[in-house]
Amino acid sequence: MSQAQNQRLVLARRPVGEPQETDFRMEHADMPVPGPGQVLVRTIWLSLDPYMRGRMSDAPSYVPPVAIGGVMSGGTVGEVMESNADGLRRGDLVEGGNGWQGYAAVDAAGLRRLERGSLPPSTALGVLGMPGMTAYCGLLNIGQPKAGETVVVAAASGPVGSMVGQIAKLRGARAIGIAGGAEKCAYVRSLGFDDCIDHRGSDLPGQLKQACPKGIDVYFENVGGLVWDAVFPLLNPFARIPVCGLISQYNQTAPSSGPDRTAGLMRAILTKRLTFRGFIVWDFASQQAEFQREASAWIAAGQIKYREDVVEGLERAPAAFIGMLQGKNFGKLLVRVGPDAAA
Amino acid sequence: MSQAQNQRLVLARRPVGEPQETDFRMEHADMPVPGPGQVLVRTIWLSLDPYMRGRMSDAPSYVPPVAIGGVMSGGTVGEVMESNADGLRRGDLVEGGNGWQGYAAVDAAGLRRLERGSLPPSTALGVLGMPGMTAYCGLLNIGQPKAGETVVVAAASGPVGSMVGQIAKLRGARAIGIAGGAEKCAYVRSLGFDDCIDHRGSDLPGQLKQACPKGIDVYFENVGGLVWDAVFPLLNPFARIPVCGLISQYNQTAPSSGPDRTAGLMRAILTKRLTFRGFIVWDFASQQAEFQREASAWIAAGQIKYREDVVEGLERAPAAFIGMLQGKNFGKLLVRVGPDAAA
Repeated sequence: MSQAQNQRLVLARRPVGEPQETDFRMEHADMPVPGPGQVLVRTIWLSLDPYMRGRMSDAPSYVPPVAIGGVMSGGTVGEVMESNADGLRRGDLVEGGNGWQGYAAVDAAGLRRLERGSLPPSTALGVLGMPGMTAYCGLLNIGQPKAGETVVVAAASGPVGSMVGQIAKLRGARAIGIAGGAEKCAYVRSLGFDDCIDHRGSDLPGQLKQACPKGIDVYFENVGGLVWDAVFPLLNPFARIPVCGLISQYNQTAPSSGPDRTAGLMRAILTKRLTFRGFIVWDFASQQAEFQREASAWIAAGQIKYREDVVEGLERAPAAFIGMLQGKNFGKLLVRVGPDAAA
Repeated sequence: MSQAQNQRLVLARRPVGEPQETDFRMEHADMPVPGPGQVLVRTIWLSLDPYMRGRMSDAPSYVPPVAIGGVMSGGTVGEVMESNADGLRRGDLVEGGNGWQGYAAVDAAGLRRLERGSLPPSTALGVLGMPGMTAYCGLLNIGQPKAGETVVVAAASGPVGSMVGQIAKLRGARAIGIAGGAEKCAYVRSLGFDDCIDHRGSDLPGQLKQACPKGIDVYFENVGGLVWDAVFPLLNPFARIPVCGLISQYNQTAPSSGPDRTAGLMRAILTKRLTFRGFIVWDFASQQAEFQREASAWIAAGQIKYREDVVEGLERAPAAFIGMLQGKNFGKLLVRVGPDAAA
């Protein structure tokens, strides 16, 4: 073992509004020891994702929050250092949810062994992992885009949004992205999106309307807020809205001021026969193998592209996470916690 | 022909808020003359339904509004008096959308010939007609109640709500109604609902919570407003909300005061993975034969009961319609426009 101690980032207190670095605390702890059926995994890659903001809050959600003093949860790719489990051995690469720490002793059953293939292992946390599958399952099961329809997605340069638009194009739909800044918009267009609107520019509603002359048939919701306000009047009859995330709301501490627009939303659901459906990726767990197969083929064929934004060092995870909520990352945000495994 | 003139109720002006009788005008016109492929139909029954409020308004909806000076639209059952069409002959009973008038000359293609069966022809406008099919299609396609789940519906003594609860029971679900007044609630319970809450009583949210100890899995939305507010916190994860009507909002003229609860609604859709889907019955037009067959069998077996509230005379339609929006009807609201056809 290369170090005698484990480093881990714990939740020091629940953030109020925008998280601060002081909401987290780096701890040094004894190296964990794997029990029967467990393995010791050294973290190579830690995934940072918007859903983690919910884990920091004790508002009701689909999973319990991280406890105060508990290690922040998160998806990881790592190397098996010791194994007490059949099926995994020292040197294996595994994907799991080992959290914001350098080492973890965990049940082998909760890990997925990664083949050493043509794509870097970090893709197991992005285009071939949870974000990619979120896009795939939400868009195809709920959005159900048809050829010629218009699909809109925000955070379009991110790992979910970029996949949503590229899959929409593969299905023959028109894909319109929304992203922050000219550089991200140029990247989104380079992925094959028909257009990308800069939400930092002026008149998002007007720009979006111009980019969607036939209205919007599928809106993959991952941000809420002003983007939703711009999308709402453009929704076509029978539009589908997979609700995957609401990043613009995650740091909100007070209800928005009135008037209350709930009645107008319900009226539009009725008169336009809209479908809203919230989901998380594991609602579609049974589709994982199909996703892996199809997405791998698309990447191999050059039909799906991806981009990673790498931050070096576990200690930088809090700042990187805070920046992500502000839209500062450009592509799938990953923390390199430790060196690659030997080939 | 028994009279030389036709009576018809036209929309005199668009109601602002609650409709007034003066928003309608009775006109006497020449008896219509059927053209080629048309029939002259004498109205026996006119159906009054909440969706008609939308037809009086020029706000965007799924069909264009009735023009000022135009005959109010509405479902009807009538007797064929003259026929220029194959397949229909004098004396036939037909269901159609001939509107608020005594006679209409219409294309035979838009009519459905009624068999003279064991049930009164008026049921073609209620339990075996549009309201019954609305309940059937919305509940089974969108609500998808499973045995042991809890289904809630308001306006539960009405033609849609009573059908929703009774079908839910047939599927093994728990059915909770909401209705206005003790008499209606007693009737709803007599239909086999597990409970019925009087929304005119005190503490609707508390009463509803007590009646739904395991939360709500399906909420068939046909009223909105305070009922929705009571339902919303009780929705279970993966709850389905067929949005069929919003009668409490139809006369609303100004947005509700704040705070804006849209963000909270979207957050619940996400974290509880709710499904909202708006619909009108004709979105499921292909299921009409199946509905007719299944509902007829249920009625014949005594498994579905229904109730009609009959108003005598076309001239009373405006007052009856206004009363319906206030919850004054008790059962399917019908106007008897003319005498039954000879047997």
